[in-house]
Amino acid sequence: MPSVKDVAKLANVSVGTVSKVLNNDPTVKQKNREKVLKTIKQLNYVPNIYAKSLSSRKTKMISIVSSTLGDEFHERLVSSIDQILSENGYDSIFFSLLSRERLKRFSNPSHFLYQTDGLIVSSLSLTKMFENKTLPTSKPYILVDTRDALNDCAFIDNYYGGKLVGQNIKLYENSKVYILGGYEPDEAFSSGVFSERIIGFIDELVNNRGFNRKNIVIMKVGLSLKESYEFGKKFTPNQRHKFSVFALSDIIAFGFIEGMKTLGIKPPDNYSIIGYDDLSYSENIELSTVRQPIEELGKVSAELLLKKINNKFEDKIHKSLIPEFIERNTN
Amino acid sequence: MPSVKDVAKLANVSVGTVSKVLNNDPTVKQKNREKVLKTIKQLNYVPNIYAKSLSSRKTKMISIVSSTLGDEFHERLVSSIDQILSENGYDSIFFSLLSRERLKRFSNPSHFLYQTDGLIVSSLSLTKMFENKTLPTSKPYILVDTRDALNDCAFIDNYYGGKLVGQNIKLYENSKVYILGGYEPDEAFSSGVFSERIIGFIDELVNNRGFNRKNIVIMKVGLSLKESYEFGKKFTPNQRHKFSVFALSDIIAFGFIEGMKTLGIKPPDNYSIIGYDDLSYSENIELSTVRQPIEELGKVSAELLLKKINNKFEDKIHKSLIPEFIERNTN
Repeated sequence: MPSVKDVAKLANVSVGTVSKVLNNDPTVKQKNREKVLKTIKQLNYVPNIYAKSLSSRKTKMISIVSSTLGDEFHERLVSSIDQILSENGYDSIFFSLLSRERLKRFSNPSHFLYQTDGLIVSSLSLTKMFENKTLPTSKPYILVDTRDALNDCAFIDNYYGGKLVGQNIKLYENSKVYILGGYEPDEAFSSGVFSERIIGFIDELVNNRGFNRKNIVIMKVGLSLKESYEFGKKFTPNQRHKFSVFALSDIIAFGFIEGMKTLGIKPPDNYSIIGYDDLSYSENIELSTVRQPIEELGKVSAELLLKKINNKFEDKIHKSLIPEFIERNTN
Repeated sequence: MPSVKDVAKLANVSVGTVSKVLNNDPTVKQKNREKVLKTIKQLNYVPNIYAKSLSSRKTKMISIVSSTLGDEFHERLVSSIDQILSENGYDSIFFSLLSRERLKRFSNPSHFLYQTDGLIVSSLSLTKMFENKTLPTSKPYILVDTRDALNDCAFIDNYYGGKLVGQNIKLYENSKVYILGGYEPDEAFSSGVFSERIIGFIDELVNNRGFNRKNIVIMKVGLSLKESYEFGKKFTPNQRHKFSVFALSDIIAFGFIEGMKTLGIKPPDNYSIIGYDDLSYSENIELSTVRQPIEELGKVSAELLLKKINNKFEDKIHKSLIPEFIERNTN
């Protein structure tokens, strides 16, 4: 196996120059850089970051774990985290928790996940994932979009968000309020945010607006556009009055509204609906909703983790951000 | 820094048992497993996979690079790749190419990206990314969703897909055909799939259906639901006839259709529209479209990479999959 010395010799430069090229040092002359890279290819030289990491034990990499990256919320959250890390000289690696098989591998403390300088775990409830309710590592980590008593975490206050919807939703006499969503196919990968929104919402309606708990109906609806559309298409509220709907995510609201349109039933004429998230498309369809400060959450989480890595924290981190109600045209 | 011997001593087990626990060996007694994990926590022991990798040079990990994971196409593609890798004992790590800053880091051959056993690069045109048009590594890799003459690749035939739309789209006398999409904010992160769809479509219309090239109008529309909705809301075809639209992705079709609805203009009564992708929601809104075999593409790519890793290939890989036209109600 060729060594860094072989590369230096063949490229006719010093070992220090090869090292500089490998570390992206901008002081290397372009001509030397090209020579070194060409020689590396020629010799099939594999630079040994393992050995390097072994000595310094700093990888300058952060692991980001998320149940999914395939939606706007997580894409924006991760982009925002990534930007702060990048500005501070850190690279990020994503681990998606797609299956219980992988969850099992993540319980192994020698998994690569735990070999970076720290971890950010998004939208997953660790208390459900691991037996001892913490990650099997001594590396610093922070949970994002999850409220957790035992672990450092940053989140948007979902109980308060639910209360905001409860304060603002239009109510109709002798009529029902429907809560849509909350169905999670596998509890291990849920974060509890939906339950908190539901509790805040019901607390507000029942305790502060005197609404009868019996007229609040929680309906399980899948989180995809497809499922909420199918649900809306078949939804028949058992009454002729206007009714009220709290969709636990904007995606559920989009699908439900489109599905009900096929029955000729539309907000705000036939019913009131409020979503949750304020995705980029929500403004276009004038959806009343709760805006989550997603970018701020990402920024705060990344900054807190970097402080932990630099040993600037002793106390428990339990950072809560506040969402905002956005009134538009569907309520 | 504590060693594996310290862990074994304190846990009162052999070094071999500690090693088995670290490698998730199922033959270890549950009681011993718990003792070892507890001791690891207690000593803050960091298992050294670097040293392990150094000797075997096999990480059993694959790097997956994608410009984005935040849409259904890429989420399904990556899930499918991940499943095959997992079935074969490989774990995958995602690298998202969000910025030119990161692209620069990826040109460094010592980046962690190249320290896994192989790479799958999705929807990125390497010819635009790196000067010498290949990745700076001797590790096996395969490009997915990209047609590339110089590198091993697997893709769905976008030229043929464009021809399928050209064969099936309804045309109206003295009327125009609009192609929507194709705008990519940064060329470095595009894969050329849109251009291929456009060329196949125009070839079919002009050469086989005798349609006048002058009546085909290509309009740049952003790829998000928000942008295509805004575009549809302001779109005024310069005629009273029915017209035809080829939306280069289903997302563009969704937004455009909703935007035009605000003007009271709907398919198939006022115009014909065909999308591209066949996302899960497309069936609900009865969108005519081209179905991409996304799961098959992921499966084939992962299998080809594993064969390359096991040295079972000498020849260039250039695997092409065929899309399928799905007629529904908007054409």
